[in-house]
Amino acid sequence: MKKLKEVGRPLVRVDAHDKVTGQAMYTDDLCPKPCLDAKILHATIGNGRVKSIDTSEALKVPGVVAVFTCFDAPKFTYPVAGHPWYADSRAEKRDKADRRLLDDRVRMYGDNIAVVVGDDTVACDRGLRRIKVEYEEYPVIYDPKESLANTEHPVHDECPDNLVAHSLAVTPEDKLAEYGYKTVDDALHDPNYKYYHIEAESAEQSQVHIETCVSYCYEEAGKIVCVSSTQIPHICRRIIGQALGIPWGNVRVIKPYIGGGFGTKQDIHYEPLNAWVCQQLGGRCVRMEISREELFYATSGRQPKSFDIEASVGSDMKLRARKIIGYSNTGAYVHHGHALVLNSVNSFRWLYHTCEVATHSEAFTVYTNGPHTGAMRAYGVPEGNWAAECLMSDIAYDNGWDGVEFRLKNAITDDFVDEFTPNGVIAAHTCDLPKCVEKGKEYIHWDELKKKYANETGPIRHGVGVAFFVYKTAVAPFALETSSAQITLLQDGSFQLQMGATEIGQGADTVFSQIAAEALGVRTEQIHVTSRQDTDVTPYDPGAYASRQTYVSGSACKKAGLVLRKKILDFAKRIYPNSQGELDLVDDKIYDCVGNVVCKLPTLALEAYYNTESNDQLSAHETVNIHTNALCMGCTFADITVDMPLAKVTVNHIINVQDNGTLINPKTCEQQVHGGMAQSIGYGLFEEVEIDPKTGRVRNNSLLDYKIPTTMDVPDLKADFVQNYEPTAPYGNKAVGETPIISAASAIRDAILDATGVKFYHEPMTPQRLFEGFKKEGLI
Amino acid sequence: MKKLKEVGRPLVRVDAHDKVTGQAMYTDDLCPKPCLDAKILHATIGNGRVKSIDTSEALKVPGVVAVFTCFDAPKFTYPVAGHPWYADSRAEKRDKADRRLLDDRVRMYGDNIAVVVGDDTVACDRGLRRIKVEYEEYPVIYDPKESLANTEHPVHDECPDNLVAHSLAVTPEDKLAEYGYKTVDDALHDPNYKYYHIEAESAEQSQVHIETCVSYCYEEAGKIVCVSSTQIPHICRRIIGQALGIPWGNVRVIKPYIGGGFGTKQDIHYEPLNAWVCQQLGGRCVRMEISREELFYATSGRQPKSFDIEASVGSDMKLRARKIIGYSNTGAYVHHGHALVLNSVNSFRWLYHTCEVATHSEAFTVYTNGPHTGAMRAYGVPEGNWAAECLMSDIAYDNGWDGVEFRLKNAITDDFVDEFTPNGVIAAHTCDLPKCVEKGKEYIHWDELKKKYANETGPIRHGVGVAFFVYKTAVAPFALETSSAQITLLQDGSFQLQMGATEIGQGADTVFSQIAAEALGVRTEQIHVTSRQDTDVTPYDPGAYASRQTYVSGSACKKAGLVLRKKILDFAKRIYPNSQGELDLVDDKIYDCVGNVVCKLPTLALEAYYNTESNDQLSAHETVNIHTNALCMGCTFADITVDMPLAKVTVNHIINVQDNGTLINPKTCEQQVHGGMAQSIGYGLFEEVEIDPKTGRVRNNSLLDYKIPTTMDVPDLKADFVQNYEPTAPYGNKAVGETPIISAASAIRDAILDATGVKFYHEPMTPQRLFEGFKKEGLI
Repeated sequence: MKKLKEVGRPLVRVDAHDKVTGQAMYTDDLCPKPCLDAKILHATIGNGRVKSIDTSEALKVPGVVAVFTCFDAPKFTYPVAGHPWYADSRAEKRDKADRRLLDDRVRMYGDNIAVVVGDDTVACDRGLRRIKVEYEEYPVIYDPKESLANTEHPVHDECPDNLVAHSLAVTPEDKLAEYGYKTVDDALHDPNYKYYHIEAESAEQSQVHIETCVSYCYEEAGKIVCVSSTQIPHICRRIIGQALGIPWGNVRVIKPYIGGGFGTKQDIHYEPLNAWVCQQLGGRCVRMEISREELFYATSGRQPKSFDIEASVGSDMKLRARKIIGYSNTGAYVHHGHALVLNSVNSFRWLYHTCEVATHSEAFTVYTNGPHTGAMRAYGVPEGNWAAECLMSDIAYDNGWDGVEFRLKNAITDDFVDEFTPNGVIAAHTCDLPKCVEKGKEYIHWDELKKKYANETGPIRHGVGVAFFVYKTAVAPFALETSSAQITLLQDGSFQLQMGATEIGQGADTVFSQIAAEALGVRTEQIHVTSRQDTDVTPYDPGAYASRQTYVSGSACKKAGLVLRKKILDFAKRIYPNSQGELDLVDDKIYDCVGNVVCKLPTLALEAYYNTESNDQLSAHETVNIHTNALCMGCTFADITVDMPLAKVTVNHIINVQDNGTLINPKTCEQQVHGGMAQSIGYGLFEEVEIDPKTGRVRNNSLLDYKIPTTMDVPDLKADFVQNYEPTAPYGNKAVGETPIISAASAIRDAILDATGVKFYHEPMTPQRLFEGFKKEGLI
Repeated sequence: MKKLKEVGRPLVRVDAHDKVTGQAMYTDDLCPKPCLDAKILHATIGNGRVKSIDTSEALKVPGVVAVFTCFDAPKFTYPVAGHPWYADSRAEKRDKADRRLLDDRVRMYGDNIAVVVGDDTVACDRGLRRIKVEYEEYPVIYDPKESLANTEHPVHDECPDNLVAHSLAVTPEDKLAEYGYKTVDDALHDPNYKYYHIEAESAEQSQVHIETCVSYCYEEAGKIVCVSSTQIPHICRRIIGQALGIPWGNVRVIKPYIGGGFGTKQDIHYEPLNAWVCQQLGGRCVRMEISREELFYATSGRQPKSFDIEASVGSDMKLRARKIIGYSNTGAYVHHGHALVLNSVNSFRWLYHTCEVATHSEAFTVYTNGPHTGAMRAYGVPEGNWAAECLMSDIAYDNGWDGVEFRLKNAITDDFVDEFTPNGVIAAHTCDLPKCVEKGKEYIHWDELKKKYANETGPIRHGVGVAFFVYKTAVAPFALETSSAQITLLQDGSFQLQMGATEIGQGADTVFSQIAAEALGVRTEQIHVTSRQDTDVTPYDPGAYASRQTYVSGSACKKAGLVLRKKILDFAKRIYPNSQGELDLVDDKIYDCVGNVVCKLPTLALEAYYNTESNDQLSAHETVNIHTNALCMGCTFADITVDMPLAKVTVNHIINVQDNGTLINPKTCEQQVHGGMAQSIGYGLFEEVEIDPKTGRVRNNSLLDYKIPTTMDVPDLKADFVQNYEPTAPYGNKAVGETPIISAASAIRDAILDATGVKFYHEPMTPQRLFEGFKKEGLI
């Protein structure tokens, strides 16, 4: 293999300067002011129907320009999730369309029932307070299992049993028969193996990106233009078109830099409503900013889930059989639907599936009157990992086994192929998990600390914990994976790279620049990247989610680079026909086959633009369709202190060691891991969107009441990697953006068990839950 | 030939709605405010040197942020004209680089010597007034012939004789010998023919576009971004790079809708200065608007010229020989250089070159201390036409010949090939001038009015006049002609068209949409056009000038359309492999070879985006290099009333009839002709930038003092066409944007001669000149 030159360079991010100096422009910076503002009226009941809305007093408020209610809005239904669409021939794969711009059927507390437009947000807020709504109320059901039984007021009439989806993957009977079993239950209850059963639960986590959801819309050239802080501009175009019932080509979406998304902005929450309001006002510019408080209930947090898990394990530490049943509470709208809990139960299966002979993974996604939930970083996997690692920890603890040894015995290896996905696409082509574990153990001083902390007594105790994870890269074979990229040679011999894939703070622009440079044979410094997507001119890509971009969009970037490289060399041969043999492009020069410089690239670029006889503006626009996937894996090791009377856990040291294949940019990868680990610590210890089950109302919709980790709560976050070359990837790379959020919470749970012997099953392990747990066990 | 379906549709302009409703955004609308403003300090001497500048008082003005002088600015020289660049191998074809951002050598009144940056323009103006400049003064020379003789203080040290360029095209001796002549002069003075000699002069005309020159600059992603009201964004990128000494790829130029240009904005006047100022201020946004008053001296109007013409003509009305010597006053800077006067003398040769056996065309472009001049609509040809038609009118009048008959006898025909341009590129492949003349005569009632007005006496008289014109299309073979275009199939089966060519109010976006639709086989309504150019993502095109876009850029558009059409049909065959025979795309459907519908285009578009196995975002990016040219031609007929005591000319009826080949859009063509005719009436009767020859200062730099025609000054402007199919064009079309400004002034001059018998040689024929002329002849 040719030695990689640009891939692997720990370059400073290409957007670093602008972001540090404040020169970077975000949606609200770009919004031309003054413009109109729009604010939403959210329902104040959790289930029912709007009987009437009186807007007369609101319209009298100075500065209020218009009020639109659920009785005015069109009734087109549309899906909101950032997923590929499908051609008519595959219509069954399309997302469920269950949202309307505004709806008189109130399905959750905070549902959107009207919108006030005013000269500023103060006028809007005043207007909102003067709207009088008359409701018909139904009982609120928040528990998914209870919701399944309720058929009196289904959340959506189209789904009378409230079951969005159900899936089941069970070891086939013939395979079970080989081991003398008829059913998976037989294998679970085989008397030669020890049987385990736990129930685990995970709460809704909020993404808490710095920049709230904001968009502004206006009409131009016969189109609705929507500038939005979104992860998925091309999908946003489609969804606005669907919601407004207009051709998608009549919508144009522009995506500037965004201040984080973590999945919130993988849904198209309010862009269609804003676009429609703008349309009603003759195309005047309308800005719609969702407040921090609204974000907690009016956009989608991580789905809360519950899991029922059984397992049987042999005295040789080998799992014999496992069964998981997951329940996902999607709330009042489907958004990402069943994919999330599928990710939970699939990753459960993949991580420790090596030895077992029987498996049963089953999942339900259920409508309730809770707030709609959706995508968040690692998309269902942290929830599944929490449940799976609870089980692994318990088994190791109960048997007095070393948790690392027990896990390694069952963990995924590089010959793993998932039997339940078609064509073996979900498989570990590369797997350096054991090396990761080695590094993690060493850093955390696993063996020493295990011994040192073994016999502690008293109120303050210490523990070390471990958790493994596995994560797929992108969404094939479950959904379409495609991306387009365009690269153009500029007049000075530099290159302009246009990606449909989006920079959302994760460093995408930087790694794409490196991939383009690698493919072209030039230096990354020669690449200019167009960061802002504009669906009218930007190549198509569904956007930033599923850790797909460096793998899928990176493939498009590489393909375009290679095609353009060939065009450049062919053109050079045309201009310099007497040059010797096959030509080569290295950095800023063209060489002949014996290594002589034929010309400098800037010189050739001038010929490409200005050669009088046969110029040609050299550009490559390429699409890829990716049918592969690449599993990546890793582990977290944590060293903690538990102050039981204070119900306080302090993380002293923590490390993530990951096999993400080849790192395109080690520096940006490390940054990703730092962020993910901090969010996972928050997930394990603090972060919970608390919902009143009686009303479906979010109790803590502010950053005063919803606790995220600060620098006071996290130690130095250590990131390390074991690199290898993933054969299906553009340059050996695998997913990295989401992986670090998966296992830190589970490792901390394992460390608490190590320190105190107390088993927690409900995350986050808030002081309240810790206190109750320690109290129940008589430790305080 | 396949019947044209979209070409020829008189569609309403695609930008009409936005421009009529005020939704269209121009540069200043887009500028984020508040921002910094910059204003230029112009020299108050006409020739000399800045000895010192004292900015101390200016810097004390509240709101003044910075002052930069000619002693601060870098000394890179750069050219400013909107012309293609050339690769190193053709460096001799590049424009002369004689401008600097700010210069202590003052070459003209109003030269740029400093710039004040402030929080607003008021602060800037106050600052400007407080700057003290000490000059060393040299004598001002405005007359070109005088300037050629002056070598004491050459305008540019690099050009000691002030002669920018000289060119000469003379019938070769062997050809002259065939007719028994040794020289052209022999043919002119052949006693068998009548000899004529005139001197004609034309003044500087100002473009008077509605939107003044304005730009704003800021830094983003390591680039200087310049948003500017320019006709030539890609050239602007290059020139800013040259002026600042930075790589061209580090410059990004964005061109919104512009409110007219007419050639002013084919120069890059102030964008580099603004970019440099922005750079000095850490990339803060700086706006620079050139005031209406500044436009008259600090940007480039139409070059004033003088011509010396001789001719000999036989009694059979056939010209025997002609000679033209043109002098062009380029002012203090070269800008468009020699190309303008070359256009004058070339068009002189082409229009009536059919019969003559000897020709001499010679031209000089000279530096003076006048304001720099440059491109204006029809680029040198109205000046040459004025001179040529003065001669033709005089000959017909003096001989009592019918002006139409005399002209037709000598006028260009469809077998014309210019012997002085390489490879016969300048040629009339199509020529329907006689039919144009027929239509014009009929409309104006030529024969009837000639008779009716023949014997008028008294102070108020009437006349009819005629003038012909010829004009080339684009700039081949004199310079590189290239363009790129990109078309992408959108998700809904509509298309996004991206042109590097610019909409400058002329309707380019509309005709490109029609051309793209024609090539694709769809309806124009299915095409979305990206009007705003952004050099980072827009295909390369030098821009709007020389009536080149519909011909050259239209060819790129057609090529991209045909390539994309093929990609679509190939993709359709892949998706529907069982479809019968070769497929066809008509409007929004794909047909098989027997006319059955295979699928709708929107359905296929969804497959192109979302087919799980083999999607492909279909897009075509194509470049053309055009080596042909196409002469177009036409005539103006005018019916006027002359009130001699009032020195007032009233145009009663006027018609332009043109052979512009096939009209892509008859409605927009008609609009072009209306505008051009009005501007030509202004050129003939009112418009003159008056320059004080002693100081080089413009005397009338305001719209109070510089008179342009209003609706009170023009009658209903009649436009008519004779259509044919130009074989070298994308769809039979030839130049149209500039042609209508050429001949109306000349026709009015002919009509005045018809009415009064007075010969005017200096345009415009202002009341002052008319009065002097009538008085001299004893008519008043």
